[in-house]
Amino acid sequence: MQHTRAAAVRDVARHDRAVTVPLADLARDADVRALREVLDPAIQQELLDGLREGRARELVEALDPDDRARLLDEMPAMVAQRLPAGLSPAERAATAALLGYPEGSGGRMMSPEVAHLRASLAAAEALERVRALGRQAETVYALPVTDDERRLLGVVELRDLVLAEPDARIVDLMGPEVHRAAAADDQEYAARLIQEADLVALPVIDGEERLVGIITVDDAMAVLEREASEDIARGAGTEPLDRPYLSSSILFLARSRAIWLLALILAATLTVNVLDAFEGTLAEVVTLALFIPLLIGTGGNAGAQSATTVVRAMAVGEVRFSDLGRVVLREVRVGMMLGAIIAAVGFGSAALFAGTDIATALCLSLFLVVTWATLAGSPLPLPARRAGLDPAVVSAPLITTLVDATGLVIYFLVARAVLGI
Amino acid sequence: MQHTRAAAVRDVARHDRAVTVPLADLARDADVRALREVLDPAIQQELLDGLREGRARELVEALDPDDRARLLDEMPAMVAQRLPAGLSPAERAATAALLGYPEGSGGRMMSPEVAHLRASLAAAEALERVRALGRQAETVYALPVTDDERRLLGVVELRDLVLAEPDARIVDLMGPEVHRAAAADDQEYAARLIQEADLVALPVIDGEERLVGIITVDDAMAVLEREASEDIARGAGTEPLDRPYLSSSILFLARSRAIWLLALILAATLTVNVLDAFEGTLAEVVTLALFIPLLIGTGGNAGAQSATTVVRAMAVGEVRFSDLGRVVLREVRVGMMLGAIIAAVGFGSAALFAGTDIATALCLSLFLVVTWATLAGSPLPLPARRAGLDPAVVSAPLITTLVDATGLVIYFLVARAVLGI
Repeated sequence: MQHTRAAAVRDVARHDRAVTVPLADLARDADVRALREVLDPAIQQELLDGLREGRARELVEALDPDDRARLLDEMPAMVAQRLPAGLSPAERAATAALLGYPEGSGGRMMSPEVAHLRASLAAAEALERVRALGRQAETVYALPVTDDERRLLGVVELRDLVLAEPDARIVDLMGPEVHRAAAADDQEYAARLIQEADLVALPVIDGEERLVGIITVDDAMAVLEREASEDIARGAGTEPLDRPYLSSSILFLARSRAIWLLALILAATLTVNVLDAFEGTLAEVVTLALFIPLLIGTGGNAGAQSATTVVRAMAVGEVRFSDLGRVVLREVRVGMMLGAIIAAVGFGSAALFAGTDIATALCLSLFLVVTWATLAGSPLPLPARRAGLDPAVVSAPLITTLVDATGLVIYFLVARAVLGI
Repeated sequence: MQHTRAAAVRDVARHDRAVTVPLADLARDADVRALREVLDPAIQQELLDGLREGRARELVEALDPDDRARLLDEMPAMVAQRLPAGLSPAERAATAALLGYPEGSGGRMMSPEVAHLRASLAAAEALERVRALGRQAETVYALPVTDDERRLLGVVELRDLVLAEPDARIVDLMGPEVHRAAAADDQEYAARLIQEADLVALPVIDGEERLVGIITVDDAMAVLEREASEDIARGAGTEPLDRPYLSSSILFLARSRAIWLLALILAATLTVNVLDAFEGTLAEVVTLALFIPLLIGTGGNAGAQSATTVVRAMAVGEVRFSDLGRVVLREVRVGMMLGAIIAAVGFGSAALFAGTDIATALCLSLFLVVTWATLAGSPLPLPARRAGLDPAVVSAPLITTLVDATGLVIYFLVARAVLGI
């Protein structure tokens, strides 16, 4: 987080010390909660203008690390509370980065311009407040309800507010469940929550349960769309395009694929090693070569199937790392089932081209390779995410290539045994 | 449509002739618009109860085909207008099918329980109507505005209604653009429209521009999610699971993959044919076999990349059939670029295992195969959709397998030429 903040801070051009001195004093105050009381509106405004105009470097650099940390703990709520309307996306991104929200976090995607209601209000007063806020707020369809400390208590839907008796209490209009995300949470988590709970918007809170922003359903859709595009692209060994296909340059398109293609061809040299080791067997029975593409192709397909299925199940939140054991167990059984079917078909087609001996060898190999590929494809994505990688990175193409090499070993060992070479 | 309607009608169990006779008379009336006037509320209600309770067979069967057609043209608006609240999803599906909306159409996904406003209302009156409708309506955040003929004029957002002066005219509060989908339109089209225009809901109209229902953003998210899952699954040669992975039976998982695996292994027998034809060459220079997996693997990856890129670009609406020429042109150039890079790497690795002759053959083959695969992968998805197939069906795995066979032909022809066999 320190690094993302620094990155945003590097953008800063202009200089201005007006804000930093009072801030330094404030931050030194042990009680962070006191910050908001101590900070007088004028200076607060100045600070916020400072944030908006990107005069952030001094603001951060003027403080000792620990003071800075304490200040930045406090700022989100402070900023969210008084942030002027109409920040440009760039300004918002800079502010979010400054506030220490990591890349891809809810804090980066939320809007701090949130219309919230005090629990003590009556419906009529609340509607008045909504009218007063007018267009500033990102949305008024979901209205977070907070206490005097700006802590999130719940959410009232505008629909319920409009339908309520004028003197109804806001607390009584809140939905039963309080859906929320932390500013540090992953964007995809927040987006899924919005989708699964059919929300129009989701409140975002800081480490102290205080409302700092809101994420709307259209932002959630965009996130899920981007994630899907990423998984689809990586599932085929290419990087997602961050711009429309037809307006991407040829060079850009090539670059998005070259890295993967190179990584995969290097992995594929494994297969050359294997075949090199078995060249003797191959020289003796050249016919064995006829079925190499069919065998490894089928193995690759089986591996891609299980890897992709697991990656997707993870993406939609059906499978977690703790399910690793269950997943492997299921895929072994699926693999054996598929292996049996494929082996039967393989025997038939092989018998036509080669003798029954080679057909037998191929048949056995197909069973083992399909089972092995299906098994091998399934577990890898899970530890991948654990390691902080996109699970889709270790999906289809990588599995396929690795399965190719191991599949060949199986094939030749089986063939030797069956043909008695 | 006739068939889907029939399907819904087949479900009908109970009998009741009360509704059909007046309907038959009505449908015979040449002027469909007259229907609503002629139809007195009591009978209308009866008709609608008839629809709800599935007493639909007689209702349809009692009419001559042309009367029936005319009646069914008229019904959506009629039904939408008076459909009682609280239809179960099953009831809704049955009604939608009866009304002749095809599978996967907006008509199937919309809710007929739409809160709409007359253009003549003032803001205060409109808010009153929203309160009166209370919970019946699917959503009150987007309020379609209609004329007396129930024709769609525009949409007012509840936000603007709440913020408006009490005496403001509804027509003046409508958004500048009128987003809408036809009941027969594809669900994905409607969902994309909601996403791209950041709508909370989208009005659905019939063939005569009359409001028949509304599609909400949460339904749109579900559709896009399903489409993404489909593309991801088919992109890896497996059918999407319509239930969570961990709660799918092993047999079900195997079935979702077996069909593809079989189709692909049959396609893969092509490679056996090719190698069989070149067995002589192979016997002469066994070393050529060492690079078969690397060559076809790389070709397959390149094909998968371009196919997947194009399929995704189509899915998000960036590429249409009319772009076919441009897509092919771009992919040829991308392919040649990638081919050149890969060929260079391939030469190096081949030179280690085999002589420079074979390395040269491989190097040339890699260039041609990668270019060809990249080119071959891109155009196929476009005509596929034209033919009414899911473009993802002809994506990665199929391309890969087809490229394998052609890649081998290229490889051996080049090898023969280079090695002078």
